[in-house]
This record gives sequence, structure tokens and C-alpha cells, in this order.
Amino acid sequence: MTQTSTLTIADLYARVEAIFRKAGLNDVQAGALARVIVAGERDACKSHGIYRIEGALRTVKAGKVNPHAVPELELNEGTAIVKVNANGGFANPAFELGVPALAERARKLGLASLVINDCTHFSALWPEVEAVTNEGLAGLVMCPSYATVAPTGGNKPLFGTNPFAFGWPRPNQSPYVFDFATSVAARGEIELHRRAGKKLPEGWAIDADGNPTTDPEAALAGAMLPFGGHKGSAISTMIELLAGVMIGDLTSPEALAQLGTTTLAPAHGELIIAMSPEAFSAGRPGDPFARAEVLFEAIVGQGARLPSQRRFVARKKSETEGITLTAAEIEQLDRLEEKGLDAVS
Amino acid sequence: MTQTSTLTIADLYARVEAIFRKAGLNDVQAGALARVIVAGERDACKSHGIYRIEGALRTVKAGKVNPHAVPELELNEGTAIVKVNANGGFANPAFELGVPALAERARKLGLASLVINDCTHFSALWPEVEAVTNEGLAGLVMCPSYATVAPTGGNKPLFGTNPFAFGWPRPNQSPYVFDFATSVAARGEIELHRRAGKKLPEGWAIDADGNPTTDPEAALAGAMLPFGGHKGSAISTMIELLAGVMIGDLTSPEALAQLGTTTLAPAHGELIIAMSPEAFSAGRPGDPFARAEVLFEAIVGQGARLPSQRRFVARKKSETEGITLTAAEIEQLDRLEEKGLDAVS
Repeated sequence: MTQTSTLTIADLYARVEAIFRKAGLNDVQAGALARVIVAGERDACKSHGIYRIEGALRTVKAGKVNPHAVPELELNEGTAIVKVNANGGFANPAFELGVPALAERARKLGLASLVINDCTHFSALWPEVEAVTNEGLAGLVMCPSYATVAPTGGNKPLFGTNPFAFGWPRPNQSPYVFDFATSVAARGEIELHRRAGKKLPEGWAIDADGNPTTDPEAALAGAMLPFGGHKGSAISTMIELLAGVMIGDLTSPEALAQLGTTTLAPAHGELIIAMSPEAFSAGRPGDPFARAEVLFEAIVGQGARLPSQRRFVARKKSETEGITLTAAEIEQLDRLEEKGLDAVS
Repeated sequence: MTQTSTLTIADLYARVEAIFRKAGLNDVQAGALARVIVAGERDACKSHGIYRIEGALRTVKAGKVNPHAVPELELNEGTAIVKVNANGGFANPAFELGVPALAERARKLGLASLVINDCTHFSALWPEVEAVTNEGLAGLVMCPSYATVAPTGGNKPLFGTNPFAFGWPRPNQSPYVFDFATSVAARGEIELHRRAGKKLPEGWAIDADGNPTTDPEAALAGAMLPFGGHKGSAISTMIELLAGVMIGDLTSPEALAQLGTTTLAPAHGELIIAMSPEAFSAGRPGDPFARAEVLFEAIVGQGARLPSQRRFVARKKSETEGITLTAAEIEQLDRLEEKGLDAVS
């Protein structure tokens, strides 16, 4: 029987924040990072939970992210574009700084966007989508990552796993949220297969010679494949263009070239688009929030699932029963808190 | 040997426009419809060429679209949302009316959207995406259609084939454009398989009992499947929410309920988002248009293709050599021009 410990969400937050402070991160960086990592554990989304702490610390230790960065807001009054320069820090505090201005602008104009530049990215996009839906807005979020995915018909890594996320606010309940990699699988999943010594499902990846492979090591050395064939490849291209080129920040191949490795968190930008259902539906028949529920009922009514439901169930459980970690995970937290950056290579 | 005739683009336009005028469409409706249909033939995109004329005429004859509609522009000054009410006519003249205002707003604010309400939709989205890129803007276009696609994990038609299209302007050459159905296949392709007596590839559809099928008739009676599994299903849901619910217009199941058949063009709305690369990249290093070319070169440099290239090659050929139609196609045009709405049932 494995020994486990159960922590409240607040307790786990305090532990993770302490680790980041010990590692030299300033208030805004440590707080924002702890919040997204604890959100991952809370939602039983292990691939974005405490597993990610070491990667963040390694990126700090390698000097690839500024632990003292203070993000700066650029309001661009009179436009629909709010910008935050992360100043070389993590994306998360930059996003937290920008959301209130984004929400205000979207409510005023009906549609607005938040651009984050010069940030290091290491978390899922659903915490950001949910911050937008918490404002009663629909949100679309995308960013490049670093070149690990071959375009359909190609044989070399070029695109990132380029996540694409969307959210729709549902009054008095968890929002409709999807957040997926535009690769067949997230890179984290391939890494988890490698650690577990498991073969990959077919169709996930090609090796360094461009041949199909089910070996995680060969896949990590070769390239992943986009989801949905040429359509996913096209969406991934769109993300490079909009959330890389258009916002004047790095594309996935540029981010990899700058970083020189796929083992650290990549630096690039991020694009968030927020839309006000009230503004868009003004003067038209029907309440958009009530009508959306009819659609959701038709989906679940035929036995299909809404995305993110497993996360929301886990969240509810964590909120009442706390978050249970294994002894090994607790030891990892102890070690990281004690040694700070010395705990990682 | 099959007899063929070659027409200039202008000649084919005149013929198609004459057909729509004979069928009772007013100037703006006949002109806009003829332009998109001729664009389809010009680009060798047969599934959106003259093949579509009869469907448009059937929809007029059934009283499901107003051939005399004059679209109205609603500027919503001070916001990022331009609207056009199609007043029950086709989407195309409404879109043509809205584009200049959309482009002006997007250049001013960096980001703007065009909402089309109360329209009948029967054409591809790439003509609209290209109208946006012609303005030097990036464009995202989406709309529902009518319920023919089951959500992943479900077994009943709910979503439309819900096209999703994107364009990026490339100075001095054809834009980067994709335009695809969020179903595995477009409904038109299933219809073309049926007419040709060909079986469908596996994975395209389920029959009325929810079982996989390769029979086009069974597929048309059952449901199509989304591309890319749960990810495509999620994107299709997003399109229902943004381009149906949010803009206060019909979702795909509502459009089908109103229409009562899948053989006529569906009535709903459409959402277009336009972004100014100049505005988004202002103050950042690098020229976005030049940087995009680096990405495109990396894609084609490894043997992968950019979408729409076949269309652009065909377009160039049509522009210099004209459009070649079969004797049967010419006869069809003759018959439609002579008989007007009497040619369709």
C-alpha cells in the first residue's frame, strides 16, 4: 500500500509558492506560477501539476527566464489590443496583469485581444481561458511552443504542439472549456510514456528519418504529428502566424533556436481574444447563455461528453476533500523547498 | 472524346448572372452569387462551382430565401462589431456590403468582427477569407450549417459541417488560405460519392443506428463524423457557440428544424474576425509579412504543401486560358437560363 498525504488547496499553494520563492522568484512570478500548478493538481491534471515545478526551476537555473521580471501593461487606448510585456518572465503573471484590462475592453468594444510578449510559457491554457469566462466573456487562446511537430506531408519538426483553447461562460456552473495540443498528443504525454516505459499509440509521431514510430525516445528525437491530418496542420500554421508572427514574437522554430533544447520551457508570446456574448447578441432574439445550454444538453443527451468535465469533477472533490499526493511527491516537494535551484541540474 | 467549351471568366460570369436574374434574383443577389460560383469554377473547385446553381434555385423556389433581399449595414460606431442583416437573402451580398466597413474598423482598432445575420449560406468560405486578405488583414471565418454531424461519442446529427477558414495576406502573391469542414468530409463530397456510386472511406460517417458505414446513402441518412475526433468535435461546438448562439442566429440543429430538409441551402448567420498584422506587431521587431514567408518556406522546403495551392494554380490557368466546361455542363447552363425556376423542382 502506497502512503499518501492529503493537503488543502491553500496548503499546497503555500508549499509550491515557498519553493518558487526559495528559488529566487519575485512575488508576482512565484504567486502566479504556484496558482497554475496548484490548479493543475486540484483538477487532477497531473501533466500540468507539481510535475512541472522542476522544469520551471531548470529554466530559471539555465538563465532562460527572468525570475525577477515585473510585467508591464500597455493599454493602447482607442484600440482593441491590450498588451502586456512579460519582460522575460513567465507568461502567467503577465496574463494575470492583463485580464482586467482585456475584460474591460471586450465589454466596451464587444471584442478585444490581449497580447503577451517576451514570456516563458510552461502551463496549460485552460487556467487562462477560465479567467476569461469568469469575466462572463467567451475566450480564445493560442500560442506557439517550440518546434517538435512536422507539418502534414513533411518530415522535420517545425510547429510547436501549439495549444488551442476556447471557453464559453455558463452561469452558475463550470464553463465550457477545451484546451488541446494541435499535435496528436501533448509533448508531456510522450514524456510520460517514456518515463513509464510504454509504447506510443500509432500515428502520434515519426522518427528522425521521417518514418512512423511508437518508441517515445525515437519520437522525442524525431517529430510529432499534427492532429486531424492536414486540417490540424493548417490550424497549427495559423497559430504560428497569429500568436507568433503577427504579435511580433517568436515562432516555434525560432523559440527552439533561441533555447537550444526542448527540455526547458520555451520563450515566445501568446494571443488571447475575448468576446462579449451580450454585445454580439444585442438586438437579436434569445438569450445566448440559455441557448448555449440547449446545445450542451443536446450533446450530453446523446451520450457524448463535454470537454474538461473530468477536471471539474476532480476540482469539486479537491475543494471539499483536499489534494492527495503520494509519499514520493511529498518528498519531491520537501527536496525542492530545501534545496531550491540546487535541486535541479 | 468528350466535347468541351472554353469560356472566359467574364463570359461565364455573364451566363451565371443571367441565370439568377431569370430566376428572379435582384441585382445584389444575382451579382454576388454569380461571383462566388464563377470563383469556384475558376479555381477548379467543382463542388462550389456551377454544380451549386441548382441548389440555390431550389432554395429560392421553396421560398426559403428572399431573392429580392437588400442587405443592411449596421455600423455600431464605437465598437469592434460591424453587422450586416442579410434580410433573408444570401450571405454573399451581405458579406460584400460589410467588408469595407470591417476592414476600416480592423485597421482602426487592430481587431474587428463582421457579423452577418439572417442569411442563407451555400458557398465556400474562402472567397470571404480572400476578400479579407485582399485588404491586407488576417481573417478568420466560421459558420454553422445544418445538423448532419454527430459529436464524438454521440450517435445523432447535431453539428453542421461547420466550416472554419483562415487567411493570411502575402504581398504580391496569393494568400495563405485554408477553408475546411469540421466534419471529416464536406457534405458535398459525400453527395459526389453518392452520385458517382462510390463507397466512402472508413471513418467518415455512421448510419442512422450509429454504426460506422461506407455507404453514402446510409451516411446521408445517418450522421457524419467530426475530423480529428474529440478535438474536431470541440471546434465544431465552438463554431455553433460563436457563429450561432453568440451572434443571435440559428445553430445547426435550429437551422435544420426551420428548413425541414438537408437538400436546400441552410439559413443562419456567419462570423468574420479580421486582424491587422501591422497593428498587432507595432513596436515589435521584424516585419510580420516577411517573417511569415520564412515559415511558409520552411513548410514547402520539407516537401509539405500549403493549402489552396491547387486552387491558385487553376486560377492562374483560368485567367489566361479560360474555363473549360463539358457539353453536359453547357447544356445545364442553357437549360437553367431558358427555364429559370421551372428548371428545378
